[in-house]
Amino acid sequence: MKKIINNVEDIVPEMISGLVKTNSDLVRQIEGTTAVVRNDAKFSDNKQVGIVSGGGSGHEPLHAGYVGDGMLSAAVAGEVFTSPTPDQIYEAIKAVDQGKGVLLIVKNYSGDVMNFDMAKEMAEADDIEVQSIIVDDDIAVKNSEFTQGKRGVAGTALVEKIIGAAARSGMSLNDLKDLGQKVIDNTKTIGIALHAATVPAVGHPGFELKDDEIEYGIGIHNERGYAVEKIQPSKELAHELIEKILADFDDKSGNFAILVNGMGATPLMEQYIFANDVLNELVDKKIDVKFSKVGNLVTSLDMQGISLTIMKADSSWINYLKEPVTTIAW
Amino acid sequence: MKKIINNVEDIVPEMISGLVKTNSDLVRQIEGTTAVVRNDAKFSDNKQVGIVSGGGSGHEPLHAGYVGDGMLSAAVAGEVFTSPTPDQIYEAIKAVDQGKGVLLIVKNYSGDVMNFDMAKEMAEADDIEVQSIIVDDDIAVKNSEFTQGKRGVAGTALVEKIIGAAARSGMSLNDLKDLGQKVIDNTKTIGIALHAATVPAVGHPGFELKDDEIEYGIGIHNERGYAVEKIQPSKELAHELIEKILADFDDKSGNFAILVNGMGATPLMEQYIFANDVLNELVDKKIDVKFSKVGNLVTSLDMQGISLTIMKADSSWINYLKEPVTTIAW
Repeated sequence: MKKIINNVEDIVPEMISGLVKTNSDLVRQIEGTTAVVRNDAKFSDNKQVGIVSGGGSGHEPLHAGYVGDGMLSAAVAGEVFTSPTPDQIYEAIKAVDQGKGVLLIVKNYSGDVMNFDMAKEMAEADDIEVQSIIVDDDIAVKNSEFTQGKRGVAGTALVEKIIGAAARSGMSLNDLKDLGQKVIDNTKTIGIALHAATVPAVGHPGFELKDDEIEYGIGIHNERGYAVEKIQPSKELAHELIEKILADFDDKSGNFAILVNGMGATPLMEQYIFANDVLNELVDKKIDVKFSKVGNLVTSLDMQGISLTIMKADSSWINYLKEPVTTIAW
Repeated sequence: MKKIINNVEDIVPEMISGLVKTNSDLVRQIEGTTAVVRNDAKFSDNKQVGIVSGGGSGHEPLHAGYVGDGMLSAAVAGEVFTSPTPDQIYEAIKAVDQGKGVLLIVKNYSGDVMNFDMAKEMAEADDIEVQSIIVDDDIAVKNSEFTQGKRGVAGTALVEKIIGAAARSGMSLNDLKDLGQKVIDNTKTIGIALHAATVPAVGHPGFELKDDEIEYGIGIHNERGYAVEKIQPSKELAHELIEKILADFDDKSGNFAILVNGMGATPLMEQYIFANDVLNELVDKKIDVKFSKVGNLVTSLDMQGISLTIMKADSSWINYLKEPVTTIAW
C-alpha cells in the first residue's frame, strides 16, 4: 500500500484539519470533534432549518465539502468507512440549530442510522426539534453488508443539494422532511468498479478483479455487486446501467437529473466520455435531462470506477439543483 | 489497461462532447474543433481582453473546466499529451476577441509554444492583437523531455485564475501580459508520483515504481523527475517539497498562496492530509499563506501523486485568486 498519509490512526483528524485550514473563510471545526460547520451557521440573517449530514470518511468531498450557504449547515466525519459517534453528531446539531429545527440526512447503513438516531434523541432532550431522512438510492442490491434494505450512495449529494437549497429558501422542517423523502424515492444509482479501494488500516484492496474484469453494482465501502464481467466499451457500460435504472422507474415522462460520479481514482476524462454516452442514450430514449453533473462527488477512497444516478425531478428540484452555492466542492 | 472509454482515437472528441453536453448553460464547442468557449464570450456587456489557453488533453479539468466568467474565455484541447493544432487555437482566438485583444496562456512545451505562436501570427494577419505568456513553474528539473527550460504544470491553474480575474476587471492586454509574467516568475511547483499514468494509446504505465517507491519531481506527461526514493510519511514529503521550493525564493516575506494538486488518482483524503502537513510547516517557517486550494486541478490521467505549488503573491493577486468565478471546475 502506497498512500500519502502519516499514522493510520490520525488520518481523519489530519484530513479534517487540512480541510478546515485551507477553507477557514467558509468552515470551522467544532472543538473536540471531527464535525465541520458553516462559519456563519448561527449568525445568518436568514434563520433557516439546520441541515446536518455525515458518515464514515473515505467518500470525500462528501460530506464536509458540501458545507456552506445553500447546502449543508454541518457535516460529521467518522473514521474510515465507520459511522461518526452520537455525541459528535449531537454537537453538530446544537451548533446549527437556529430555533427552526434540524434535519439529518443519513445514508442507509446500520451504524449511521443507529448513531444519528441516538443523536436525535439527545438533541430532543434539549428541546431541539430534529427530523431525519434516510438515503437509499443504490438499486444494485438489497440487504447488502452493513445495510438493511438498499445502500445510500452517490445520490446523497443530489439530495443534500436540493434539501440545502430548499432550506435556504425558508422551507419548514416538516416540509423539508417530506421533500427529502420524495427526492429519495425518485433517485436511483448503480456503480461499477474496475479496481477495489484499499482501506488504509487493511493495506490491500477490498476485493480482486482480473485485468479485464469489472464488477457491476458495487457499493462505496468495497461491497461486492451483482456481477463480475469482462470490461466493455463505455457505451455498453452506459447502456447496462441505464437499462437497469430505468426499469426501476414506472413513469419515464417529465424532467430528469443525472449524476456521473467518479469513485476516486478514475480520471475526469473517462467520466466525461461515459457522460457523453449516457446522454446520447437518454436522448435516444426521449428522457428529458434538465440537469447533469459530472465529477468525484461521492468517492470510495482510491476505488477505480464510476456510478450513474438518475433522478426523476420536479421542475422545482431542477431549480434547487442549479442554484449557486458557496461550498468547497459542489 | 482498464479504462472507461470507447475507441482510443475518439477519446478527446467524446470527452469534449460530454463536457459540453453536461455544461451547456456555461460553454459551447466551436464547430469543427475541440475548442470550448464561453457561451457569452462575444455578448458580454463587459468588453474585456479574451483569455485563451489550451494544450494536450489528459490534464482535466485543465483547461476546459476553467472556461467561464472570471477565468478563461476559451480552451483548446489537443490529443492526449499532444498540442492542439494552430488552426484550432486560431478559431478560439477569433471566437473570443471583443476588439480588446487576446492573451494566450501557454504551458512551456515545445509543441504548445510553437503552435500557439503560429495561431498568434494567423490572428495578427486578421488584425487581432495577440500576446502570449509561457508558464514554466516546475522547478524540479530543467530541459526535460518535450521542454526547453522548465515545464509548465499545476501553477498554470493559479495563473489562469489571476489573469482571468484581472481581465474581467478591465485590465489592458499589455498590462495582463506584464502581470502574467510577474505571476509566473513567482510561482514554483514540484510534484511526486506514487504510480505513473497510463496513456490510452500506449496501454501501460509510463514508468515503473516498486511497491514502496515514489518519484520526486515528475512532470504531468510521465516525465521522470530527480530522484526515486522509498515512500515517506506525508510530513516528510511535505518537508522535502517545501525545502526545495523555498530555496528557489530569494525573498520569503510578504503574502503567499499555495496549491496542493492531486495528479488524478489520488483521493482527496490524502490531498488534505498533505495540505495539513504543508500548512503546519509553513506556519513554523513564518510563511504567511493568504490563499490555499486543494484538489485535482491539473492532472496527469490516472497518475497517483501530488504536487505542491507555492506562489509569492501581491495582495491584489490574493484578491484575484479569491474572487468568485462561474466555471465548471475552479
